[in-house]
Amino acid sequence: MLIEQLFFLVPLGALLALFFAFFQAKKIMQYSEGNELMQKISAAIRTGANAFLRRQYRSVAVFFAIMFVILGIMAFMDFLTPFIPFAFISGGFFSALSGFIGMKIATSANARTAQATSEGMNQGLRVAFSSGTVMGFTVVGLALVDITVWYMLLKYVFYSHLNHNPTEQIRLISSAMLTFGMGASAMALFARVGGGIFTKAADVGADLVGKVEAGIPEDDPRNPAVIADNVGDNVGDVAGMGADLYESYVAAIVATVALSVSAGYEFGGVMAPMMMAVFGIIASLIGTLFVRCGDKTDQLSLLGALRRGVYVSSALIVIGAFPIIWFTLDCANNPGRIGIYFAVLSGLLAGVAIGAITEYYTSDSFNPTKTVATAGLTGPATTIISGISLGMLSTVFPVLIVGLSVLISFFASGGLTNFSQGLYGISISAVGMLCTLGITLATDAYGPVADNAGGIAQMAELSPDVRKRTDALDSVGNTTAATGKGFAIGSAALTALALVVAFIDKIEDLIPRYNPDFQFNLSITNPPLLVGLFIGVMLPFLFSSLSMNAVGRAAQSIVREVRRQFKEIPGLLEGTAEADYGACVDLCTRSALREMIAPALIGIAAPLLGGLLLGVNGVAGILAGATASGFILAIMMANSGGAWDNAKKFVEAGNHGGKGSEAHRATVIGDTVGDPFKDTAGPSINILIKLVSKVAILFAVIILRFAIFS
Amino acid sequence: MLIEQLFFLVPLGALLALFFAFFQAKKIMQYSEGNELMQKISAAIRTGANAFLRRQYRSVAVFFAIMFVILGIMAFMDFLTPFIPFAFISGGFFSALSGFIGMKIATSANARTAQATSEGMNQGLRVAFSSGTVMGFTVVGLALVDITVWYMLLKYVFYSHLNHNPTEQIRLISSAMLTFGMGASAMALFARVGGGIFTKAADVGADLVGKVEAGIPEDDPRNPAVIADNVGDNVGDVAGMGADLYESYVAAIVATVALSVSAGYEFGGVMAPMMMAVFGIIASLIGTLFVRCGDKTDQLSLLGALRRGVYVSSALIVIGAFPIIWFTLDCANNPGRIGIYFAVLSGLLAGVAIGAITEYYTSDSFNPTKTVATAGLTGPATTIISGISLGMLSTVFPVLIVGLSVLISFFASGGLTNFSQGLYGISISAVGMLCTLGITLATDAYGPVADNAGGIAQMAELSPDVRKRTDALDSVGNTTAATGKGFAIGSAALTALALVVAFIDKIEDLIPRYNPDFQFNLSITNPPLLVGLFIGVMLPFLFSSLSMNAVGRAAQSIVREVRRQFKEIPGLLEGTAEADYGACVDLCTRSALREMIAPALIGIAAPLLGGLLLGVNGVAGILAGATASGFILAIMMANSGGAWDNAKKFVEAGNHGGKGSEAHRATVIGDTVGDPFKDTAGPSINILIKLVSKVAILFAVIILRFAIFS
Repeated sequence: MLIEQLFFLVPLGALLALFFAFFQAKKIMQYSEGNELMQKISAAIRTGANAFLRRQYRSVAVFFAIMFVILGIMAFMDFLTPFIPFAFISGGFFSALSGFIGMKIATSANARTAQATSEGMNQGLRVAFSSGTVMGFTVVGLALVDITVWYMLLKYVFYSHLNHNPTEQIRLISSAMLTFGMGASAMALFARVGGGIFTKAADVGADLVGKVEAGIPEDDPRNPAVIADNVGDNVGDVAGMGADLYESYVAAIVATVALSVSAGYEFGGVMAPMMMAVFGIIASLIGTLFVRCGDKTDQLSLLGALRRGVYVSSALIVIGAFPIIWFTLDCANNPGRIGIYFAVLSGLLAGVAIGAITEYYTSDSFNPTKTVATAGLTGPATTIISGISLGMLSTVFPVLIVGLSVLISFFASGGLTNFSQGLYGISISAVGMLCTLGITLATDAYGPVADNAGGIAQMAELSPDVRKRTDALDSVGNTTAATGKGFAIGSAALTALALVVAFIDKIEDLIPRYNPDFQFNLSITNPPLLVGLFIGVMLPFLFSSLSMNAVGRAAQSIVREVRRQFKEIPGLLEGTAEADYGACVDLCTRSALREMIAPALIGIAAPLLGGLLLGVNGVAGILAGATASGFILAIMMANSGGAWDNAKKFVEAGNHGGKGSEAHRATVIGDTVGDPFKDTAGPSINILIKLVSKVAILFAVIILRFAIFS
Repeated sequence: MLIEQLFFLVPLGALLALFFAFFQAKKIMQYSEGNELMQKISAAIRTGANAFLRRQYRSVAVFFAIMFVILGIMAFMDFLTPFIPFAFISGGFFSALSGFIGMKIATSANARTAQATSEGMNQGLRVAFSSGTVMGFTVVGLALVDITVWYMLLKYVFYSHLNHNPTEQIRLISSAMLTFGMGASAMALFARVGGGIFTKAADVGADLVGKVEAGIPEDDPRNPAVIADNVGDNVGDVAGMGADLYESYVAAIVATVALSVSAGYEFGGVMAPMMMAVFGIIASLIGTLFVRCGDKTDQLSLLGALRRGVYVSSALIVIGAFPIIWFTLDCANNPGRIGIYFAVLSGLLAGVAIGAITEYYTSDSFNPTKTVATAGLTGPATTIISGISLGMLSTVFPVLIVGLSVLISFFASGGLTNFSQGLYGISISAVGMLCTLGITLATDAYGPVADNAGGIAQMAELSPDVRKRTDALDSVGNTTAATGKGFAIGSAALTALALVVAFIDKIEDLIPRYNPDFQFNLSITNPPLLVGLFIGVMLPFLFSSLSMNAVGRAAQSIVREVRRQFKEIPGLLEGTAEADYGACVDLCTRSALREMIAPALIGIAAPLLGGLLLGVNGVAGILAGATASGFILAIMMANSGGAWDNAKKFVEAGNHGGKGSEAHRATVIGDTVGDPFKDTAGPSINILIKLVSKVAILFAVIILRFAIFS
């Protein structure tokens, strides 16, 4: 059998993932949605989330239409292959679909989780986690569908005449597929930024007026922004996260495929990452079967149940990756290539290790977060300083872990003797980290469902016993959300590095045809590259600034609306009249859609303008700088935010004076500062660093040909 | 006349600067120190500052002794030229002396400024500014003394046998002088970090107990930490700043000298930066004569007076730099070299522009800071978010300005045809920025003197009229402090870039002798370099985290001490007994000295360990990454801090409810968060980024020879 025929496993893997997701979704729908009130609340959340996504997709469609035209013109001018405009659309479509399905199932599972929890802890966990698995397996399934469709079209239709020249065929296929990513990236950025602004504007707005001014508890149905708050959890944390990881997953696989040619691995190097992805689906599927708990409500048992699934899947990868690499890369005849197995392992372990570090810094079981809570005793200022300081410190180990993983991958893959093979190793280590995405994303997407379930239990006034259980589920969700963010940014960094390398590779391809005189000078002492590096390092700061400001402005408008409703709707605060939830959802939607434009444009404009001014070398600097600083800033913001959140929970659990104490007020302020850090700016940076690379790849010809300094 | 004989102007310039400083100091001492109470307070501040510096120098001496032995061993093993251990000591000595003299005159001028202000606005301005000029001209004078001594020793003693071979002679001289910088850098880091921790621990500690718990006003003599607070202004803002800029100034000149050989400019290229420095002293001196105001107390007149001095000096440089470059670089015969004039100009203008940008973001006359004040209306959380967001946004233009300046310098100096000449251009642009240091540092060092004068006026209960004037002086000092920080970080970035290039140059020199097989791979895609880049970008975050935590811990100990005194000294709060000021000063001293060690060690260990693991290419990545991220993080922290400070002042001036309002409480919290941002972590990063480069240069042989991956 020819190695390239293995490809048939990719659509099979996709089908397996999608069937499993479908089967899980069916199972969830059989659970009861609880009493009438619960159904009503869940329906309101569902309606709001649907409305937001529909309008978001409509806005984004405009952008996609414009881009389609621009890319069409470029294709017409022979700067791009003609199918790229279509691939751009398909990437955006599948990324959006991943987010949409995840959101659909999450909003269907929230009331069911609340209801199931009333029957037992394990039932609640199963429903919430199953909802997460639907999301996880949909993302990987759709990703492989997208890859299958384009790979087959390219290989068997557009480039079928090159069947006799596999090297050239792979080169053209992979080069084309590399340019596809930008659609998915752009969609992911809109989803993350828009969703992030929505969720935090609603959250902050609801808290500022409800909790602080009107003195009503969180998740109280009298608060007009309460539904918007719950909608936000779904559109930000679920849909945004799905689109984000869809994109990392596809990008890691495609970048590895693209680097296979220069590494000299031909179809073996193409199949290796694809087979890893397929096997990862099986490993993840088996892992999910291990996620179950008894009736213990403590954090450690629940966390243990979720972790068991991830660890089982990872262990399977450790075992299964060896024969995959051995066979696809023909290690029997090229024993040195088995080093790539260690590249895969280093990526896998780096993902697990970053998760563990994140947990250490953000869980209130450990010292760092406890220190932030203690700082609450001396007021908000010391709480803020200590949280920022914690976030900054927490970047050290992830940097060292990613650095170590990059070096191991490079050297184990033979980078010392063949540079391109080393780079292939780095790229496949990103695949190693991401191949268990089915289950890691499931544990992550579980969080917002549990959060919503808690909100519904509160609003529907279920028994305190049930609420205690949903609180336990929710609290674990906070931890998995934090580790999920660590994983997302770690994989984004490795993927972005692979994309930087792929960009250089792409330019090398284009030089003979578009600018034969061009010479690389990628030295760190080359001034345009150095200036690009500075600009790149600055980009995540600019981006964070804009997105945090956007949350501030959007929250202000919610504050005004909630105040208006309290004043103008008679009987609202007494509980005799109903709030106009839709108005708040609508307001959040409009603000989020308006505010998501500027940050997204930066991601697109920076590499393009930077490229036209500073040339290819300058863009390389921008990409490397943005990746390094984005990685570090995203970790800092996510961990500062996570620690503040849990420090508040730690105080609320009765420490340092408990609720209502000075320390509580201080940590609540910390938590509010942390909200846009960890849920808007931080996670959006992941996408920014991938997007800039993909824009550079897509517009590589333009940069190569029209740059002022080249 | 041989061009190299122009060197005689350097010692003359040094003498001119030192004489002018001496003359100004004499003039200040003739002013009256005011009444007995003022003298007493001033004496207490002086004693405290002296005590701190004495003990700091004693601690640092241990470090210098250890380094002397290490370097001695390295010299003995033939890894270094034998005079480097001595040069290391001399650099540290002159850097320390710069700080010490600046502090001496500042603590002598504070009461005199208060007294002079009672006679008139212009008199007060003159005394405070004259004190700044003493500092400014001492720094540049001592820097040229250090350069003169070593240059003459090297040229006329150690390498006099090479008089017939000027190229080789310059190469050896400049290579040796390049390694001298680390002594000055290490001293500056200790001074900045130690002083920064002292000043903010005292400030935060005094505020937390005095203002918040005991309810007594700022600068109230009953507060035991009040003297420590005023001491802090001198040891942190004056001594630390002096040591910092001494080091940038010397480094910029020496790096340019070192790059002259590979650029092929020989002695002309050595003399050009030196003559710029000498002429800069004359231009600064003339500029100081233009600093005078009428009796207007408004901010703009005072600021205008100070700015006039800087602008006059800058204009003189614009005129004078042309003949200097023309003559030293023999442009009559090499007309292309006149492009270097534009490199000098671009550096000069970049310095001025960064100052203006800083002012825009941190002055309450403009929108950004006003927005932070408005955010105070919705509480501390929004104040913090908006301040951080402002700081992040404020990094955009400085990055673009420095980037533009780098590109202009590179291309104007002929970098397209001769790469080394372009790099020489970047380096001399740093000299262009720093050559007016005499006067820019004077306007900066003026701030703490005015601040102290205000404190003394308050404590000595001078008439409200005088206090209004000292307040006006102080307020302008806040703005010049902010622009001074912008200038310091801008010049540090350009200097650090020059040092990175000089490091590569140095390694090239060493290869034949120490590791002939070594090959550079400075490509941004080289994994060790890329990993180094990530580590470099992370370093300023780690460093900031440690120094902010240090302030927190030190402030806690002050809080305990002040509480103890309030409890144990009967009659203290009633004003009938005197506080034990010395105990607080002593405590701050001990905390600062203990806490300065860890951050300083990072600066030394990171490039050394990183180098041993990742090799020369990895170190290049570390240096470039640390420079880019340090530059951006330092600006963000300085500007966030400055904006919070002025937002508080804006509210205190009666806006948004004025003192005691909700907005005031919120902005006070912002200001407290900003204190360690702008006065400890931010400014220390300047030195960190230069120190890592200098450590790399000093230990270049070790890195080249013993690295694991080379």
